[in-house]
Amino acid sequence: MRSAEIVAIGSELLGATRVDTNSLWLTERLNDIGIEVMLKTVVGDDGERLQEALTDALRRSDLVITTGGLGPTEDDITRKYSAAAVKGELVYHDEIETNLRERFKAWGREMPEINKRQAFVIDGSTILPNPNGSAVGMLYENDGKMLVVLPGPPRENQPMFLDHVYSILKQRAGDFYTYRRILKVSGMGESAVDEIAAPIYSSYDGVQTSILFNKSEVELHIAARADSQNAALTLTNDVAGKLAAALGDAVFSTNGETMEQVVGRMLTERGETLSLAESCTGGLVARRITEVAGSSRYFVEGAVTYANEAKVRSLGVDPEILANYGAVSAECAEAMARGIRERSGTDHAISVTGIAGPDGGTAEKPVGTVFIGYSSAAVTRSIKLTLPGDRYLIRWRTSQAAMDYLRRQMSRS
Amino acid sequence: MRSAEIVAIGSELLGATRVDTNSLWLTERLNDIGIEVMLKTVVGDDGERLQEALTDALRRSDLVITTGGLGPTEDDITRKYSAAAVKGELVYHDEIETNLRERFKAWGREMPEINKRQAFVIDGSTILPNPNGSAVGMLYENDGKMLVVLPGPPRENQPMFLDHVYSILKQRAGDFYTYRRILKVSGMGESAVDEIAAPIYSSYDGVQTSILFNKSEVELHIAARADSQNAALTLTNDVAGKLAAALGDAVFSTNGETMEQVVGRMLTERGETLSLAESCTGGLVARRITEVAGSSRYFVEGAVTYANEAKVRSLGVDPEILANYGAVSAECAEAMARGIRERSGTDHAISVTGIAGPDGGTAEKPVGTVFIGYSSAAVTRSIKLTLPGDRYLIRWRTSQAAMDYLRRQMSRS
Repeated sequence: MRSAEIVAIGSELLGATRVDTNSLWLTERLNDIGIEVMLKTVVGDDGERLQEALTDALRRSDLVITTGGLGPTEDDITRKYSAAAVKGELVYHDEIETNLRERFKAWGREMPEINKRQAFVIDGSTILPNPNGSAVGMLYENDGKMLVVLPGPPRENQPMFLDHVYSILKQRAGDFYTYRRILKVSGMGESAVDEIAAPIYSSYDGVQTSILFNKSEVELHIAARADSQNAALTLTNDVAGKLAAALGDAVFSTNGETMEQVVGRMLTERGETLSLAESCTGGLVARRITEVAGSSRYFVEGAVTYANEAKVRSLGVDPEILANYGAVSAECAEAMARGIRERSGTDHAISVTGIAGPDGGTAEKPVGTVFIGYSSAAVTRSIKLTLPGDRYLIRWRTSQAAMDYLRRQMSRS
Repeated sequence: MRSAEIVAIGSELLGATRVDTNSLWLTERLNDIGIEVMLKTVVGDDGERLQEALTDALRRSDLVITTGGLGPTEDDITRKYSAAAVKGELVYHDEIETNLRERFKAWGREMPEINKRQAFVIDGSTILPNPNGSAVGMLYENDGKMLVVLPGPPRENQPMFLDHVYSILKQRAGDFYTYRRILKVSGMGESAVDEIAAPIYSSYDGVQTSILFNKSEVELHIAARADSQNAALTLTNDVAGKLAAALGDAVFSTNGETMEQVVGRMLTERGETLSLAESCTGGLVARRITEVAGSSRYFVEGAVTYANEAKVRSLGVDPEILANYGAVSAECAEAMARGIRERSGTDHAISVTGIAGPDGGTAEKPVGTVFIGYSSAAVTRSIKLTLPGDRYLIRWRTSQAAMDYLRRQMSRS
């Protein structure tokens, strides 16, 4: 089994606003085991088109994976037309319905009658259980071709694929091993990273390195393929190690950890605590810090002091500072960090004040001007940044820079 | 001309990291003039697959638009295999090469010989000029089918489409107009919404309704097509009006507004202010409220009181409440809302306290138990919710429910 196609189903995916993220994720998993995705199709809630697209896909490729269209409503058409595409029949499974009824009961609700539709599967297919949703998946094989039918929501789709499909495909695909690592870099641009990284990664064969720029960080994706697991692992780690050494402390993560996980782990290891005072990010830093399970061990309190009087009242910022320097200033950032640290009694405090736009910019302090403050018992300091982007991106990049500032301050001490 | 397909060409689009944005943009333009995109295909740099995919697409649909694969390098295969798909010949155009040579000269460079490839077009096709790049496009018609070949980079693709393709398609599409609306529903599941909505929308012809479930809300997408702009508008609004009436105040948005925009607009219209006290959502409600530009007009302050002592110190929650009822209780939620409102002097305050997991749940208060408090000068009250999902989803759904609670409280008064 070498060639695959992915068919994403749902009219919403044909619209201008929704991106099919499942197929990106599935492509990476399939590439890992040496199966090449040759084609992707997105088809709307139109049964005939879907059947035609599936028939064409099964003619062209060994493996076809569909995502979506398994819900209980009338426009969820995958069951019916995938059965038609393989010239199979849909058969009703009592135990699927019983199972569904029980799950609805556990949520304190009666199963709506339309959910009965989800108890039908292609005759002769393997049923793929879905602990995260109401739609089961299917794996159907015939004539050397395999059709895998998965639900659309990534939280259902991905575990189902990993738990019930991946190992079967891996076996069929043969002995190819790919090992991946991601280095995450903060505070450097894409070109600057590539100038340092390219001479290193381009000296290797069998290693694919791509540089991606996300909202606020540069990622180096390293993937090495070899004919043994060990060789792939060694090769990947070798490249990753050289790249990390060359890039220095701009690399904040070498194992997939997010910035919030990195600072959370550092705080946990040190047994120290954190408080936050935010203005322009409006709670985004706190939200990201608390996205990490177990963050209550180190995160004590955050203040979202949007209005100036809130900065004075809740953080004890001297009104003189606001009058003389303005809310967007190094002085205010430092007073905010000191204020929340003293109030909450934490070891570290980070503050953010800036202009996220679209309004509020001036010639002297344009949109994107941000001050980040840091305070500990030993020191209170701040940095100024000028960030590009719209309101959303400026806020996101500020939150990343604030956590990175905390990381660098902790690394020093 | 009613039905279209888009074929995006390039192995990079099959990778796990690159998204084909052209097709989203083209879909919107085509929808605007009543041409429905029935299918999208992404195909790599594989000539035979491409030819097969194009042949299949032209069999199924009136219009096929390709993007990408027109560069001068060897893996740019669109010219050759699109010609093969329509059983046409590639012919060399002297004036295209002359033009290209002059452009390279204007950039102060000699034209590389491989760029000669870009002077070949399908015999009988209309050449679409490209002022923004080196690859011309093509428009080829045969047997009632139209093939439009566009370059990949959006800066070349989009102007070429608008300047040389759009008006032709608009004329062919005839007088068909599509009008779209989205109803957003909070506090009801997908099946429950469909049970009410299906009898309404399925009684209409020419109206496509799809039901989508996002992390915390159900969306009803309504698209009506008619032969005049006015008829499409009337039909859409008629269906939307009936659906909104049937679903009642669960519908929080009928014009695409997000929940944070809806409560922001309500607060602005009333000239009132808001403060927030969050525990388990960790700043997520504040972040969403302040995502809206201009939110400083109504949002004064948020407190992220993660630790119990922060709830006492910063919100004045009576330690007796924490001792007797716990931090996850109606009493605590109400004390938090009252506390932040009194401290910040706002008209409204919302509070959130709950167990987002994965740890911290008990038999009595399992993961997903959430209390939302509301306080105004007139009233302080709370609701209890039991939300399904993992930490991320519980937090997201809680933030949505908190803003929805504020919306409902404001609607009442």
